[in-house]
Amino acid sequence: MTPTELDEKLLSDVRNALEHEDSTRVNELLDEYEPADVAEMLSELDLDEQAEMLDDLPAEDAADVMEFLDRDEKVELAASLPLKLLAEVLDEMEPDEAADILLDLDKKQAVLALERMHPDLAELVRPLLVHDDDTAGGRMTSRFPVLRDWMTASQAIAYLRSLRPTSEDHYYLYVINRGRHLIGVVSLRDLIIALPRDTIGSLMDPDVIRVTTGTDQETCAQLISKYGLLALPVVDSDNHLVGVITHDDLVSIIEEEATKDLYGLANLSPDSDLGVFSPFKMMIQKRLPWLVINLFTAFLASSVVSAFEGTIAKVAALAAFQSIVAGMGGNAGTQTLTIIVRGLALGEMEFRDVWQVLLREFGLGVVHGLVTGLIVAGIAWLWKGIPILGLITGIAIVGNLVMAGLAGTLVPVMLKRLKLDPALASAVITTTVTDCCGFLFFLGLATLFLPYLQ
Amino acid sequence: MTPTELDEKLLSDVRNALEHEDSTRVNELLDEYEPADVAEMLSELDLDEQAEMLDDLPAEDAADVMEFLDRDEKVELAASLPLKLLAEVLDEMEPDEAADILLDLDKKQAVLALERMHPDLAELVRPLLVHDDDTAGGRMTSRFPVLRDWMTASQAIAYLRSLRPTSEDHYYLYVINRGRHLIGVVSLRDLIIALPRDTIGSLMDPDVIRVTTGTDQETCAQLISKYGLLALPVVDSDNHLVGVITHDDLVSIIEEEATKDLYGLANLSPDSDLGVFSPFKMMIQKRLPWLVINLFTAFLASSVVSAFEGTIAKVAALAAFQSIVAGMGGNAGTQTLTIIVRGLALGEMEFRDVWQVLLREFGLGVVHGLVTGLIVAGIAWLWKGIPILGLITGIAIVGNLVMAGLAGTLVPVMLKRLKLDPALASAVITTTVTDCCGFLFFLGLATLFLPYLQ
Repeated sequence: MTPTELDEKLLSDVRNALEHEDSTRVNELLDEYEPADVAEMLSELDLDEQAEMLDDLPAEDAADVMEFLDRDEKVELAASLPLKLLAEVLDEMEPDEAADILLDLDKKQAVLALERMHPDLAELVRPLLVHDDDTAGGRMTSRFPVLRDWMTASQAIAYLRSLRPTSEDHYYLYVINRGRHLIGVVSLRDLIIALPRDTIGSLMDPDVIRVTTGTDQETCAQLISKYGLLALPVVDSDNHLVGVITHDDLVSIIEEEATKDLYGLANLSPDSDLGVFSPFKMMIQKRLPWLVINLFTAFLASSVVSAFEGTIAKVAALAAFQSIVAGMGGNAGTQTLTIIVRGLALGEMEFRDVWQVLLREFGLGVVHGLVTGLIVAGIAWLWKGIPILGLITGIAIVGNLVMAGLAGTLVPVMLKRLKLDPALASAVITTTVTDCCGFLFFLGLATLFLPYLQ
Repeated sequence: MTPTELDEKLLSDVRNALEHEDSTRVNELLDEYEPADVAEMLSELDLDEQAEMLDDLPAEDAADVMEFLDRDEKVELAASLPLKLLAEVLDEMEPDEAADILLDLDKKQAVLALERMHPDLAELVRPLLVHDDDTAGGRMTSRFPVLRDWMTASQAIAYLRSLRPTSEDHYYLYVINRGRHLIGVVSLRDLIIALPRDTIGSLMDPDVIRVTTGTDQETCAQLISKYGLLALPVVDSDNHLVGVITHDDLVSIIEEEATKDLYGLANLSPDSDLGVFSPFKMMIQKRLPWLVINLFTAFLASSVVSAFEGTIAKVAALAAFQSIVAGMGGNAGTQTLTIIVRGLALGEMEFRDVWQVLLREFGLGVVHGLVTGLIVAGIAWLWKGIPILGLITGIAIVGNLVMAGLAGTLVPVMLKRLKLDPALASAVITTTVTDCCGFLFFLGLATLFLPYLQ
């Protein structure tokens, strides 16, 4: 059973029930599906059908389903809901989810919705609104169970039983002292196998890996992956426990960080909200500026070629080979760049490793340059019947592949050192280097050996 | 406290203790550190120091530390261990980890190590050796607790207490019937808040999202992310529960799939084991073939230019502008390609969406082409003082950006349809299309308007 197979029939049944305003039937139909599947189906409906359907569901279910929508869809739908329904649904959401939606809504609507929410729940959401989206503070939830070190295991279990079930399960339970400082962690498993009278203080692990509200989500992703964590506690500057990043957010953080690297390297704004179905206007905003930047760097490379117009006018065949030299450099540079950027993102590479990596990439540039340079030289010679053309193409490729290795390593490392996103601008810069060097090496050599080329 | 700060002092202390063969001191030093941090430090040591250190640690700790090493390091170290120590460490590992190492070892050594292992544990590892690395079967562990539907909650808890603690916590407990068929799932949280006499049958959720041993790990990653899962049960073709993919593997699956997409798009073999510190030989194996393939496609593009040598010989300035047209197409194509590949990988885009996406990308190509084309036209005119040069560059860019959108969409979708990896070859193909079309449009128009260019 894959959700895609189900879609069509369910969709038409639900549409039918919505048309007949048969909310019992809507509930019946959706009852047996996972919220994630209902969300997938919901996104196929029109906006007014979506609003109607959410209205038909119990607010709790509506909140569950909405949490699984894509960010754009979520906000578009929230914006179209009547204020009363919106507040009801937000009340049922995890505070971090509710905060994300409120932050994306038009300010006036957000303020009104927050006013309509249950005061206790609005109180949980409000502090989350001040943090940057991609920091630990922006990803944490403010509703989570806490234990005290003086509790016994059976008291802790009784406390967990007394909690209203939420859509997020907490498998790590954090322990705080009277001052709400984070002092330990107990896993649900520790708790279950403990003796009833064991105290939390004796069960807990006092070495808790923690982040502060301002910690970048990339660092969070590295910690999660390195230590195999299921949740990450967030403290303020005084070590007060203020939030928890739960496992479903951990997965999306890891996916988002990967998407951002991918986008940055492809000359796209590294915004993980950008997807196949993003609004047309957003697509242009996130793509066109990078095309324009590339355009200007392309002119830079083109001015190098232009400087050698005299040579090209004499041997027009050079125009056919210049792109090969520049292109090979671009490809090799992208390879190096991608490996370095991923290594930096996953925390495999540190600044101190740069000399070692640079030396390796230099060596790789030489090896790759010699192999591809020889092939090109051979083909150029055979094709155009000018041996010296083969020679200079080959030499230019070796030189350019070495430059590609060096630029592909140094550019992202330096951007990282400057606290900039290494994925962001390094592709443009590296390609500019390989384009300019490629043209310069090749056309420069050609000018030098011009008498032998004609 | 970040691990990087600790490193240096710890490292020299440990080196010192190893030199003095003071294994008590080694244990003392490492006792307070997380296995992940010890692993990070271990990878800074020489191979013989590493082996010595593992020998000093209790086998259980040695196994924990080894699990956190990178794959290359893990295998290199395992290969260097004496057989007795290797078998001891493998005994203490999770079966899936042990299987991964055995599969990477030289066959003879693997067979000998398996023979030396505890027979019960070897029995758990053996069935894992037959599955492909990147399928559910290759990622699952074969050691996991199972519940029966007739158990009560308190019996289940007593059973969990009786288990030897392992390095992996199981937060989802799967329920099987007498035939070992998977019939339900209970979360540890359900169990802890249940009444002692509740039966597992009444507590369990019978709708379990499951995969079979042959399921591709990309599909597993999509399910995990879609449903927010902590573990994924693996069944054989008869629905017998044969393994569980636990949460630490889930995180690495998601990271690996992202790395593979990133590498594929950068003309690298999509092998997530490739990293900054991969052996030099592996680097060449995974990179050089793609450079050579690109080389041949570059000759294809170059032959297009070559066909217009006559035109270029008359107006050498064309050689400077041809790269801009081709390059802009390459950039725009990479943008489209990256968004589509990521959309396919995350399961956001289905085959049925292709027409809609194609239409959008066509529109984006026109918009982006008009904007960048106008800028280029203006600059070309001002720079070279030939208005018609600006015009044909602009038109060629519009045409090439439309081609970029179409190729960037169709190529990955068709590869996916052919059950090939859309990230793998689409960058080469798309760039070849944009290079060839760019040169053809631009130089073709230039030849047509040649009288006005001179």
